[in-house]
Amino acid sequence: MAEKVLIYSRFPKSMMARFAERFELLDTGGKPAREVFPAEELNGIRAMLTAGGSPLGAEAMDLFPKLGAIVCYGTGYDGVDIKAAASRNIAVGHSPGANAASVADIAMTLMLATTRRILVADQYVRSGDWAASKQSPMMRPQAGMPGRRIGVFGMGEIGRKIAARCAAFESEVGYFSRTRYDLPYQYFPTLEALADWCSVLMIAVRAGAETHHVVNADILKRLGADGYVVNISRGSVIDEKALVAALTDKTIAGAGLDVFEKEPHAPDALTALPNVVLAPHIGGHTLDSHVAMQNCVLANLTAFFEGKPLPYAVKSA
Amino acid sequence: MAEKVLIYSRFPKSMMARFAERFELLDTGGKPAREVFPAEELNGIRAMLTAGGSPLGAEAMDLFPKLGAIVCYGTGYDGVDIKAAASRNIAVGHSPGANAASVADIAMTLMLATTRRILVADQYVRSGDWAASKQSPMMRPQAGMPGRRIGVFGMGEIGRKIAARCAAFESEVGYFSRTRYDLPYQYFPTLEALADWCSVLMIAVRAGAETHHVVNADILKRLGADGYVVNISRGSVIDEKALVAALTDKTIAGAGLDVFEKEPHAPDALTALPNVVLAPHIGGHTLDSHVAMQNCVLANLTAFFEGKPLPYAVKSA
Repeated sequence: MAEKVLIYSRFPKSMMARFAERFELLDTGGKPAREVFPAEELNGIRAMLTAGGSPLGAEAMDLFPKLGAIVCYGTGYDGVDIKAAASRNIAVGHSPGANAASVADIAMTLMLATTRRILVADQYVRSGDWAASKQSPMMRPQAGMPGRRIGVFGMGEIGRKIAARCAAFESEVGYFSRTRYDLPYQYFPTLEALADWCSVLMIAVRAGAETHHVVNADILKRLGADGYVVNISRGSVIDEKALVAALTDKTIAGAGLDVFEKEPHAPDALTALPNVVLAPHIGGHTLDSHVAMQNCVLANLTAFFEGKPLPYAVKSA
Repeated sequence: MAEKVLIYSRFPKSMMARFAERFELLDTGGKPAREVFPAEELNGIRAMLTAGGSPLGAEAMDLFPKLGAIVCYGTGYDGVDIKAAASRNIAVGHSPGANAASVADIAMTLMLATTRRILVADQYVRSGDWAASKQSPMMRPQAGMPGRRIGVFGMGEIGRKIAARCAAFESEVGYFSRTRYDLPYQYFPTLEALADWCSVLMIAVRAGAETHHVVNADILKRLGADGYVVNISRGSVIDEKALVAALTDKTIAGAGLDVFEKEPHAPDALTALPNVVLAPHIGGHTLDSHVAMQNCVLANLTAFFEGKPLPYAVKSA
């Protein structure tokens, strides 16, 4: 008989198809599990699949007395209380690096779309304003990529791929992360110093308590009037209210965002702005990336049910 | 007294400011010169500044009996009848390579915006459809950049910069051009062979009679249903009607276009399509690129009025 796996977050059915071939899936559709399944069924649950950003604390874990494995779909696990899991002997797995190229690519897409104002450009052509020779105030020339200073915040797998791509655009690349690596990019010892130096801040840091709202009004002010922010990490890293204010009063020039503080809700003040490019958390949303992430999930679940350690365990767990 | 320069095409005044410091500009605003200036003034004109894509044939040249220099703003000179100029002893200058990085960057911007469907993504967030958990048929996962086969048509300065950028995205790069170069990319002896192999065709070839409509229905069909076309060269290289048909009936997946056959007019059939990203010929439209192009224009005009050869002459002229 197939082992049971609780689908704790809301995932499209198509993404679950490969798992359904191997396991019996109890899909909550993102609703509270107790509303969807009877208690006796949940009491037997040993493994669950979740989105790493969905809140999953001690109280939630205690609803499943036999829970032994929390497997996150994707790289992030910031919603999971790692200490609470460890103290309950619950293994936590994820998909490290599986979506790194895909996420780095959406970072580049958002940076280029924002700095080259592609939404405005497209609308200028489609509306007929170009054909009518109407002036567009946003079409004035802007700085290009060669020589542009791009600051990468976080130098994990995604940060490295962003840095390598930016270097190919003939830009200068600097970075700040807790650790200084042997990499051909200028290292800055603080986020403040990086923000003073760069004009585009690419946020690729792992989300968590210590990075909550670290990109605040002060950091945005340091980027300056020609500055841009691109966030493909988690919405929690930016103080979203401060960002809206900085974009509205032109403290910075623009932003490209794939993530938001309260997904899937992007605040009205943000969606009304012309100098942002917004995406619905599609960083890891490519075919290659989904296959790679699913491979990690399958490997983690299979190992767990065979009584082995998770091959893609969260390191700090 | 400052030498007179006829501004033959329509340029924004801000782009002409540096030239106005050195020369007396007779600005036609893109209108026929004879409608704007008296004949005696035009009869004395020795140099003109034009957009390389604007038609400028033998008949037009003969309206200016003393014309000795045609200086194009930018790299292209496809609108200028080079043979007619040569037979009249008129030097033709341009700005080779000055905008190569900027144009390569808009090619990358259009490729990423199109393949990652950034217009649809942005609209999905702004409309509130994401917050309402509405399905979006265009948000299904697509192929990513790693391993994607990108075909570069034309291997001049812009083509090389596009190829180098694509390589940094972990994509496979192939190319077709008249000449095979010592480059780390796969060479294809024909455009057909390149189109059979690649899924994204990046058009970076110099426009002219021999490249007119070479990207036709047959080439588009070879790209296939997952194929994309990006054009940052000239609209004339693509058979625009065939492109609209291929996009409409899903022969190919999408297109990113910075150039059109009859600028500034993009056909209604094209602007109505959801699977294209359109830009109003802004490839070279960055501050760095404008400064570099203006430097070439100033050097060409200064040399000409000093009786010297143009430092940035069109080679075949």
